[in-house]
Amino acid sequence: MPDAVELIRAKRDGRPLSEPEISWLISAYTGGAIADEQMSAMLMAIYFQGLDPAELRAWTAAMVSSGDRLDLSGVPAPTVDKHSTGGVGDKVSLILAPLVASCGAAVPQLSGRGLGHTGGTLDKLESIPGWRAVLSAAEMTKALTDVGCVICAAGPGLAPADRKLYALRDVTGTVESIPLIASSIMSKKIAEGTAALVLDVKVGSGAFMREIGAARQLARTMVTLGAEHGVRTAALLTQMDTPLGRAVGNAVEVQESVAALRGAGPADLVEVTLALAAEMLRLAGIGADPAAALADGRALTRYQQMIRAQEGDPDAPAPQAAHLQRITAAESGWIRRLDARAVGMAAWRLGAGRARKEDPVSAAAGVICLAKPGEQVSRGQPVLELRADDEARFGRAAEVLAGAIEIGARPAAPGSVVLERIEP
Amino acid sequence: MPDAVELIRAKRDGRPLSEPEISWLISAYTGGAIADEQMSAMLMAIYFQGLDPAELRAWTAAMVSSGDRLDLSGVPAPTVDKHSTGGVGDKVSLILAPLVASCGAAVPQLSGRGLGHTGGTLDKLESIPGWRAVLSAAEMTKALTDVGCVICAAGPGLAPADRKLYALRDVTGTVESIPLIASSIMSKKIAEGTAALVLDVKVGSGAFMREIGAARQLARTMVTLGAEHGVRTAALLTQMDTPLGRAVGNAVEVQESVAALRGAGPADLVEVTLALAAEMLRLAGIGADPAAALADGRALTRYQQMIRAQEGDPDAPAPQAAHLQRITAAESGWIRRLDARAVGMAAWRLGAGRARKEDPVSAAAGVICLAKPGEQVSRGQPVLELRADDEARFGRAAEVLAGAIEIGARPAAPGSVVLERIEP
Repeated sequence: MPDAVELIRAKRDGRPLSEPEISWLISAYTGGAIADEQMSAMLMAIYFQGLDPAELRAWTAAMVSSGDRLDLSGVPAPTVDKHSTGGVGDKVSLILAPLVASCGAAVPQLSGRGLGHTGGTLDKLESIPGWRAVLSAAEMTKALTDVGCVICAAGPGLAPADRKLYALRDVTGTVESIPLIASSIMSKKIAEGTAALVLDVKVGSGAFMREIGAARQLARTMVTLGAEHGVRTAALLTQMDTPLGRAVGNAVEVQESVAALRGAGPADLVEVTLALAAEMLRLAGIGADPAAALADGRALTRYQQMIRAQEGDPDAPAPQAAHLQRITAAESGWIRRLDARAVGMAAWRLGAGRARKEDPVSAAAGVICLAKPGEQVSRGQPVLELRADDEARFGRAAEVLAGAIEIGARPAAPGSVVLERIEP
Repeated sequence: MPDAVELIRAKRDGRPLSEPEISWLISAYTGGAIADEQMSAMLMAIYFQGLDPAELRAWTAAMVSSGDRLDLSGVPAPTVDKHSTGGVGDKVSLILAPLVASCGAAVPQLSGRGLGHTGGTLDKLESIPGWRAVLSAAEMTKALTDVGCVICAAGPGLAPADRKLYALRDVTGTVESIPLIASSIMSKKIAEGTAALVLDVKVGSGAFMREIGAARQLARTMVTLGAEHGVRTAALLTQMDTPLGRAVGNAVEVQESVAALRGAGPADLVEVTLALAAEMLRLAGIGADPAAALADGRALTRYQQMIRAQEGDPDAPAPQAAHLQRITAAESGWIRRLDARAVGMAAWRLGAGRARKEDPVSAAAGVICLAKPGEQVSRGQPVLELRADDEARFGRAAEVLAGAIEIGARPAAPGSVVLERIEP
C-alpha cells in the first residue's frame, strides 16, 4: 500500500504519481484513511507542480469511480450537456437546454447553486413558484425522456470525492489550479453519463479566468479529459468583462430568459446561446437550425414543459423587489466599460447570492443594466437599477459599483462575445 | 482579524506576510482557531515560496512567544549551548557539555529523542541506570548552577507552536524546508534562554542536509535568526558521510564518550568536540583551553557529576546485547567509504532507534565500526559488529548495509571533519 507522506513528497519534488498511486490516494481520502491535512498539502503541491496528462486522466478517473456513474443509455435521443465556468448574468442554461431539446437532443443538465459573485442556475429556477431542484435518478431519466431536457441538482452519489475535495480546496487556498478545476468539472460531467459536452469557458473581469491564455489552457485540458473518458467534448471561450444580457439576479434572469425564448433577448445573450446550441447539436450529430427553433416558439414551449415537469408554474408572476434604487450616468457619452465582477458583487450584496452554502437567496434581488457598453447615455440618465428586499443593502452594493462604469467621448469598438472554439 | 485562506493565497502567490499576520497565524494555529488542513497548505506554500528574512524573524518570534521563555539570568556563569542537526554516532553532547562546563561556562542543553536513523541524546543517556531526563525548570537551573551543565528534556511549555507544527510537518511532507527547519530549531533554543549558541550543521549521506550548499544556507539562516533574537550564534559545518567515532547506538555511544573523556576517544570525534568547545568558549568570552580540560580529567569529573545530579550511576556496568553478528570485508584493501546513513539505519533496525515516538528503544543495540575509512583491512576481517537483544533483527539490519562498505586498492585522501565556520 502506498504511503501518503511518500506520495506528497513525490509530487512536491516533481516526480509523477502512477495510476495505482492516484487511485489509492483518492479512494483513501474519500474513505477517510488519508487526513484532510495530508490532502491539503498534496493539493498545494499540485498547485505548484501541476499534474501531467497521464496523472490528470488517472486523477479524474478516480474521482468518477468514487461514486455512481449514471446510465442514460435508456434515453432515446442523443445526450449532450453544457457546462459554464460561471459568469455574471449567465442565464444561458435556461434557454439552451429547452432550445437544444426542441431540436432533437436530450440535455441532462446537473447544475449547482451560486457561491460568491456568480449566480447558480438552480437558484434562478427556484425563483419560479413550485419548481423543484432535487430529483431522483429515475425522475431525472423520465424528464429527459418525456421532455428532452432537465435541469436539476447533482445527487450526493455523483463524484463524492469531488464534493470532499472541493470543500477542502475552498478553505485551503487551492482552488486556482487548472488540473484541479478541470478534474472537478469533468469528473461530475463524466459521472453524469452524457455522451457529449460543450464547455463555455468564460474569460474576463467577471470570470474565474481573467486571462485568455489561462482560459484556453483550462478549455484544452477539459476537452482532452472528455475525449479520454469517452465524452465528445468541445469548448467555446466567451467574453465576460461585462454582464451577459441586462439582468443579474434570480427572478430577473428567468424573466430575461423567457424574453429570449420569445425572440426578444439581448443580442449578446442570444449570440452565446446560439453558438453553444450549434456546438451541442453538432456533437449530438443533429442537423437542425437552433435559430429557427428559437424564432418559431418551439424552444419556449419546451421550456414551459421543462418547468412544469418539475412542478414549477411558468406562468406565475415573477416576485418583485420591495425597493429600487438607480445609479445614473456621471457624464454624457458612450458606455465603454461596465465591470462584470462589480455588477456581480453588487447583485450578491443585494441578496441574490450567498456567502455560505447554507444561506438563503432572495428571488427578487438583483441588478438591471439599463445601459451597456456600446450604448450612449446622457448625464443623469439611469445606467443601473438595483433591486432588494431590504433597503439597508443598497449602501454596500453601491460601494462596490464605484468605478464600475466608464463613459467616454466615443463608442468602444464592438467585439464578438464568442472568442474562440477549442476542439480535441 | 486576518483570514487564514487569504494568508495562504498570499504566500502561495509570493506576497510576503506581515509581522501581525504571522503573529496571528501562529497564535491562532496553536490555539486551534486555524485547522491543521489550512496550516499544512500554508507549510507547503512556504516550502515552495520560502520566507524572506523579515517573515522568518517574525515566524520564529511568534513560535518563541507561543510558550514560556526560560530565565537563566540567575545562573552565575555565562550560558552557552550547542545544537546538532543530527548525525550517525553523534555523541558529541555527552562530552562537550561537561568539557565546556569544566572550562567555566554553563551549558543548558535541552535535548530531544531520536526518530528515524539518527539517535537522540536523551535515549543515549537513558541507557545509564537511574538517569532521569525530565527535570523541572527549578531542577534544571539548580543543576546548571551546581554542576555547570545539564542535559534534559525540553518541557511542554517551551515553544508549543513548534511542537504542533513539527508533528504536522512530519505527516504532510513539509519537513525539508530551510526556513521551517531553522525556525523550529532556533525557536526552541531562543526560548531555552541561553545567551550563546553553537550550531553543528552536519553535511553528508548520514545528515539531513546532504549537500554543502544547503547546509551552508541553513547555517547562515540560523546564525542570523540567533543574532536577531539576542543569542550570540555561530555554526560549524561538519562532515557526516561516515559515522562519527566507532560506536552507533545508545549504551555503546555512552561508553565511547567516556573513553573520549578519559583521553582515548577516536580522532574524528575528538576533533569535532574540541572545535565546538572552542567556539562555545569564544562566544562565552572564556579564554580556557578545552584540550587541556579533556587531557587532565577535569571534563570527566564534570561528566560524572552531571550524571549523578540526574540520579544516574556513571560507574554502573553498561547493558550488554544478547546477540552479536559481524560483517566482514569482502576483499582486501583500504576502506574508502562506510556509509553513515546505512549504518544509522542498521542501528535503528537493530533496536537502537524508534519508528514512532511512543516506541521504546534498546539500550544495548547498535553497531560498532571496527574499521573506518582510511583504515586497511584484509579479506574476511570483521568491519562491522551488529548488536541486538533479538537475533531476528540481524536480517533487516544486514540488508540495509549491502553496498555500504567500499574497499579500494589505495587509501582515500584523509579530510578534516570540520568543514567550515559560519558567523553572523
